[in-house]
Amino acid sequence: MLYKLIKDDLPGDSTWFIRLEKGEEILESLTKFCKKFKSFTGATGTITGIGAVSYAEIGWFDPEVKKYVTKVYQENREITSLIGNLSLKEKEPFFHIHVTLSNAAFEVRGGHLVKAIISATGELVLRTFRTIRLSYPTTDLTRTLDEETGLYLWSELDNFPENG
Amino acid sequence: MLYKLIKDDLPGDSTWFIRLEKGEEILESLTKFCKKFKSFTGATGTITGIGAVSYAEIGWFDPEVKKYVTKVYQENREITSLIGNLSLKEKEPFFHIHVTLSNAAFEVRGGHLVKAIISATGELVLRTFRTIRLSYPTTDLTRTLDEETGLYLWSELDNFPENG
Amino acid sequence: MLYKLIKDDLPGDSTWFIRLEKGEEILESLTKFCKKFKSFTGATGTITGIGAVSYAEIGWFDPEVKKYVTKVYQENREITSLIGNLSLKEKEPFFHIHVTLSNAAFEVRGGHLVKAIISATGELVLRTFRTIRLSYPTTDLTRTLDEETGLYLWSELDNFPENG
Repeated sequence: MLYKLIKDDLPGDSTWFIRLEKGEEILESLTKFCKKFKSFTGATGTITGIGAVSYAEIGWFDPEVKKYVTKVYQENREITSLIGNLSLKEKEPFFHIHVTLSNAAFEVRGGHLVKAIISATGELVLRTFRTIRLSYPTTDLTRTLDEETGLYLWSELDNFPENG
Repeated sequence: MLYKLIKDDLPGDSTWFIRLEKGEEILESLTKFCKKFKSFTGATGTITGIGAVSYAEIGWFDPEVKKYVTKVYQENREITSLIGNLSLKEKEPFFHIHVTLSNAAFEVRGGHLVKAIISATGELVLRTFRTIRLSYPTTDLTRTLDEETGLYLWSELDNFPENG
Repeated sequence: MLYKLIKDDLPGDSTWFIRLEKGEEILESLTKFCKKFKSFTGATGTITGIGAVSYAEIGWFDPEVKKYVTKVYQENREITSLIGNLSLKEKEPFFHIHVTLSNAAFEVRGGHLVKAIISATGELVLRTFRTIRLSYPTTDLTRTLDEETGLYLWSELDNFPENG
C-alpha cells in the first residue's frame, strides 16, 4: 500500500490517493490505513476507485432473511466502479463499499463488497472529514445495529423536518 | 430521511451524508431535501451513493425519437453505483442521476434513474456548492431545453477556447 | 466542450463541471481541457460523470500477456458510471477512467475506457488539486512505467508504514 496526501485542510477535509498493490485485500488495507492515521483522518469519509482484482467476493442482501447471499469470482476482473463510505462501527473505522466488476467478455457483475484481492493495481481516492470543532466534541459518522433490517446503519443523524 | 452535515464551509462547499429509509423514493426525497435547504445548499452539486432498492424504473435515451425507453424492476437490487449531479431546472433543484443495480444472481442492469424506492437503506453523499460571491450575483448551474437533443442540458457555461 | 468553474479555492482545490457535446471524444477532450488550463488545474484530480455515447471502446487488462483486450460498441449506450483520476504521465496530463455502459435492453458492459464518443451529452465533474505550496515545489501525482505489470502506475508515493 502506497499513498499520497493530496489535500490536507485541517480541520475537516483531506484527500488521499491510495495505490493498492498486487495481493492486497481492499477492505483490510483501507481499514488498516484508517486505523493508522485515525487521529488525523477521523472515521468519516467517502471513497471511489478503479483498478483490477484477481479474486472478489460480493454480496446481495436478502431482506427476508436479513442476510447477505455471497458469490466468489476467481478470475481477473476490472473494477469498473467502486463507491463507498467510511464511518465508525463499534469504535473502529468501517468501510461500506459496493462494486461492479467486468470480465474478459466485458460482462459486469456487482454487489456489496465482502472481499477482493488486487491484481495489477488499485487506484482509490479517499476523502476524510475530521470533525474537530474548537467548541464541540469530535463526532464521527457512526453506525449502530438496526433491529428492523439486521444491518448496521448510520445513526445519530438529524431528522429531516418533513413538515417543518 | 435522515442527514448529517459533515462539512459546512461557507460560502461554497458543503457535504451532506443522507440516509434514505425503507419506502422512500430517491429523486423525490433528494429534491425535497434541496428545496428545504435551498437557501443554504443552492442548487449546484454532485451526488454519489450506494444502498438497495425494492423497486426501480430506469431509462435509456433513444436519440432518434428523443425519448426515454424505460423499464421497471420490481425486485430487491443492490445499488451498485449511483452517480449524478444537482442543477437548477425551471427554477427548482433538479437531480440527474444514473445507476447500476444488481440482483440476487449479481447480474447488473442500469440506466438513467427515473424512480427508485429504497429497501434496507440508501447511503448518499451530496456535495453542494453555494456560489455566493460578495461581488457577484448568485449563479447556480442551470439547465435549459436543448432543441436538438430534446433534453434539458447544462446552459450558461463558458465555451472552451478551442483555438484560443 | 463547455465548462463552468464552480469552486476555485487556490491553491489546491477546484471543481469544474464539464459538458461534452455530441461527437466529442471523452479522453481527448478532457486531456485538451487540462493542457489548456494546466497552470491553473495542475495534473492531479478525480473525475466522475454520466451521459451517453454513440461509440465506445473499452478494455480488459490481461495480466498474463500484460496487454489490454479491447472491444468496440457501436450503438447508443448510457454512461451508467464513469470514475477515474488525473495524474501526470510523461509530463502530460493523463486520465485513467473506467466506465459501465448500458444498452437499450439495460444490459451493462464495462471496462477500462479506451475511447468513447458522446451522443446526447456528457456531464462530467472534474476536481483538481493544484499542489502549489509557498515553501515547496509543485508536485503532481505522477505515473511511471512499472516493469512487473507493464502498466504506468502511480509513483513517488509514500510507503504505508506496515509496522511503523
